[in-house]
Amino acid sequence: MSTRRKVYVEGPSPDIRVPFAEVELTGGEPPVRLYDTSGPGSDPDVGLPPLRGPWIAARGDVAPTAGAGTPLAGRRPTQLAYARAGTITPEMRFVAVRENVPADLVREEIAAGRAILPANVNHPESEPMIIGSRFLVKVNANIGTSAVTSSTAEEVAKLTWATRWGADTVMDLSTGAGIHATREAIVRNSPVPIGTVPIYQALEAVGGDPVKLSWEVFRDTVIEQAEQGVDYMTVHAGVLLRYVPLAVERVTGIVSRGGSIMAAWCLAYHEENFLYTRFAELCEILARYDVALSLGDGLRPGSIADANDEAQFAELRTLGELTRVAWEHDVQVMIEGPGHVPMHKIKENVDRQQEWCHQAPFYTLGPLTTDIAPAYDHITSAIGAAMIGMFGTAMLCYVTPKEHLGLPDRDDVKAGVIAYKIAAHAADLAKGHPGAQAWDDALSKARFEFRWTDQFNLSLDPDTARAYHDATLPAEPAKTAHFCSMCGPKFCSMKLTQELKGYAARGMREKSTEFVDAGGRVYLPLT
Amino acid sequence: MSTRRKVYVEGPSPDIRVPFAEVELTGGEPPVRLYDTSGPGSDPDVGLPPLRGPWIAARGDVAPTAGAGTPLAGRRPTQLAYARAGTITPEMRFVAVRENVPADLVREEIAAGRAILPANVNHPESEPMIIGSRFLVKVNANIGTSAVTSSTAEEVAKLTWATRWGADTVMDLSTGAGIHATREAIVRNSPVPIGTVPIYQALEAVGGDPVKLSWEVFRDTVIEQAEQGVDYMTVHAGVLLRYVPLAVERVTGIVSRGGSIMAAWCLAYHEENFLYTRFAELCEILARYDVALSLGDGLRPGSIADANDEAQFAELRTLGELTRVAWEHDVQVMIEGPGHVPMHKIKENVDRQQEWCHQAPFYTLGPLTTDIAPAYDHITSAIGAAMIGMFGTAMLCYVTPKEHLGLPDRDDVKAGVIAYKIAAHAADLAKGHPGAQAWDDALSKARFEFRWTDQFNLSLDPDTARAYHDATLPAEPAKTAHFCSMCGPKFCSMKLTQELKGYAARGMREKSTEFVDAGGRVYLPLT
Repeated sequence: MSTRRKVYVEGPSPDIRVPFAEVELTGGEPPVRLYDTSGPGSDPDVGLPPLRGPWIAARGDVAPTAGAGTPLAGRRPTQLAYARAGTITPEMRFVAVRENVPADLVREEIAAGRAILPANVNHPESEPMIIGSRFLVKVNANIGTSAVTSSTAEEVAKLTWATRWGADTVMDLSTGAGIHATREAIVRNSPVPIGTVPIYQALEAVGGDPVKLSWEVFRDTVIEQAEQGVDYMTVHAGVLLRYVPLAVERVTGIVSRGGSIMAAWCLAYHEENFLYTRFAELCEILARYDVALSLGDGLRPGSIADANDEAQFAELRTLGELTRVAWEHDVQVMIEGPGHVPMHKIKENVDRQQEWCHQAPFYTLGPLTTDIAPAYDHITSAIGAAMIGMFGTAMLCYVTPKEHLGLPDRDDVKAGVIAYKIAAHAADLAKGHPGAQAWDDALSKARFEFRWTDQFNLSLDPDTARAYHDATLPAEPAKTAHFCSMCGPKFCSMKLTQELKGYAARGMREKSTEFVDAGGRVYLPLT
Repeated sequence: MSTRRKVYVEGPSPDIRVPFAEVELTGGEPPVRLYDTSGPGSDPDVGLPPLRGPWIAARGDVAPTAGAGTPLAGRRPTQLAYARAGTITPEMRFVAVRENVPADLVREEIAAGRAILPANVNHPESEPMIIGSRFLVKVNANIGTSAVTSSTAEEVAKLTWATRWGADTVMDLSTGAGIHATREAIVRNSPVPIGTVPIYQALEAVGGDPVKLSWEVFRDTVIEQAEQGVDYMTVHAGVLLRYVPLAVERVTGIVSRGGSIMAAWCLAYHEENFLYTRFAELCEILARYDVALSLGDGLRPGSIADANDEAQFAELRTLGELTRVAWEHDVQVMIEGPGHVPMHKIKENVDRQQEWCHQAPFYTLGPLTTDIAPAYDHITSAIGAAMIGMFGTAMLCYVTPKEHLGLPDRDDVKAGVIAYKIAAHAADLAKGHPGAQAWDDALSKARFEFRWTDQFNLSLDPDTARAYHDATLPAEPAKTAHFCSMCGPKFCSMKLTQELKGYAARGMREKSTEFVDAGGRVYLPLT
């Protein structure tokens, strides 16, 4: 019988148990194992079990306390530091099984800075994953309360919903009240790394006035979030004072919230961005918890007109400079990218990022390939995301149908994740990622052999695939029928080819005779 | 006030009145004119007015009868013949206004075979449009009854719905009962060219048995449909007997219905495809009505595994040979393409098609860039469609969410058309099509200036954009508010940048002082 269920594959030691979605197939086909991000499931009031707890404790970098661990002074317990020291951590072994690659490749890519394994010592609930161009392309989903709408419970539900459909990381972009409690609930219930943009909370802390921001307020916010277990943080340290004028004459100016906040601060004081001037201090803090840096593109283009302009690329060069500094502190780094970019300008983004940022992983928002389709920006951007993934981007930040229009609800989160899983997998195929095409082949073979339930279970979204089939042919026998409602039984080319296949197997000449002798019927009449 | 309405732009003579959707903008911005395919609207029982009637009559190629015109013997009243003779027809002039290009460019591209203007002399209701790589990328929507479900009235409603959202041509793929009447209703009510696959009806005529098909049955079907006014016909003349074995060992064999029907016929008789052997006769018929040929890719790949294989490319070479024959008969031609193709293999499809088929326009189905997402194939294929459009494909055949699963309903038709309008426009931008970016710029400027209603009216789907905005901020004042629910008023980067812009305009130093003096407030408090 065709089924889809979670299985755990044991790694080199029994404490490494890696989740997969296993699809049992009919027709004598071998089962297919799919990457699985849904986590073990949790009671929101209890949280997830601390999978990585023993590994973290064994390394002796943190003093365990009641809630979270407290990093010991002077230690830099980052996956980058361990990789550089030649140590393959349990997290790396977990990832190796998950990606079906040698553990040493995982270590090497992290050591070289070409991949990151975001894993805050205070987020032991996370299942290790890796972001790098040599690995499967990953997808991030943004959630978070806003000043206008939504609650903590809703956001935890969105987290679980997003990882169910395949989100590899989740960013909590909450900006409303209760920002600390919302984040706590999200981290404790998240099987995937959690990212944040700490400047949002820092701004709340100073009453919403960018002019009142300071390094000290920001630093305290970062420490608070690092203690909670945030795995990576977006920091807009590349928005330099001298770059701000480059952005003001654009069609859409500065569209990054963090970017516009820091631009306001720079202009107010006519001073350099404190995130840039205090960057080394920031790295010291992040290294203690193994918080990865996501260097934000505060000057990313917000429209086709502004793509690949001077403001964008000036900042990107600075992000490359900051990458070196972070690496000196053993801090893992990825680089954020745009935004809105027409197709012919996408490749240049990856090429420059890889060159200027020393091959640090690229993490892009879309890009949207046209501005004309609000309500469909999951599609305008899935096009760009697939392409930029093909060119080497390691993680794609999703865009939902509500982009530019409102806060995404549950349906929007799913639509965004699915569109981006499509883009990521299309990129894996185009990059020739080993094993990627096996999934397509298994599904297409099931399709060709009319194993409908196998086809549904292998789908990115089995529920909707089945529902759409039910919409026109709801009866159970239709699930084994050798046609669908699209063409009906008389016109099914798949059915026809199957019959031709038998003939072709036995030489053309005889085939023709047999075919006519058999009545020349190439389909089953509708009965 | 911001509005969107249909206007007619007069051409070089008063009988040439070209429709556009004109968006009046606020904020002192000039109006934007968008390409419009929705037609003048019709009472389904009456049909549309015969816009092209006087032009056709004036050329004297047809003897007018009660219903349709009867082509005069020996005439080849095709747009290709006129273009080659140096004549710029009213249809070409109409297209020139519609595409905002010189009429002589239209004539040259048609004369060279690089573009087609499908315009059956018996479909005078159509508004002329052009398919060629030098023009805007076009979108086709498939509709049609199947043996399992749907009625004529439903299909006419789908036609109107598809053109409302931007379908440039519509293919009637009906396979069920009443195929003639359904097509009649569709043609009489269609402001866009109608395409068909005559082999479907021919197969119905012989009781569904491919072995009973013959040139004579096919020819009579083509004449019947040409008399009705079908503007282009898909003909699978490139499925040669010797190519069939190349396809049988594929993961998904032959997935084209027409391809599998002709393969069955070839195998049954061990004879060459009669569409190939009688191709010149077919062209003589098509030339009399100016029916354009869409040379079908009966061996297109139906899965990632089968992309760009020997079967596919063998047939493509034959289509190039047939293109020459069609041109000798003054028949307009386009070439159909795949299907399922991973991103890194897309460009090769266009390059080979352009070379082997002598730059005849390419018309592709998608391609789908992965097989794993049934229920989302409008997205898997919009990615491929955008890319193949960028590389030079002239028309994209849409794929709906129901692809592989069932017959598309009204919602699916809209979802497919919108996804493909996105792909087509993204391709226009990437090709640097003159004027394409003006649409994006107008919308982005409206977005940046919080002209919400302008933004909605400029959208590909104003209804849904507005509905999504209403979902979180339904109040009318929100339509002029300087923020949306996504970030709320405190965090709107657009608002912030607008304020920065004023400061930046007056030098950095003074700006800093002013900014602080003004209270450093960069947002409007939520009141």
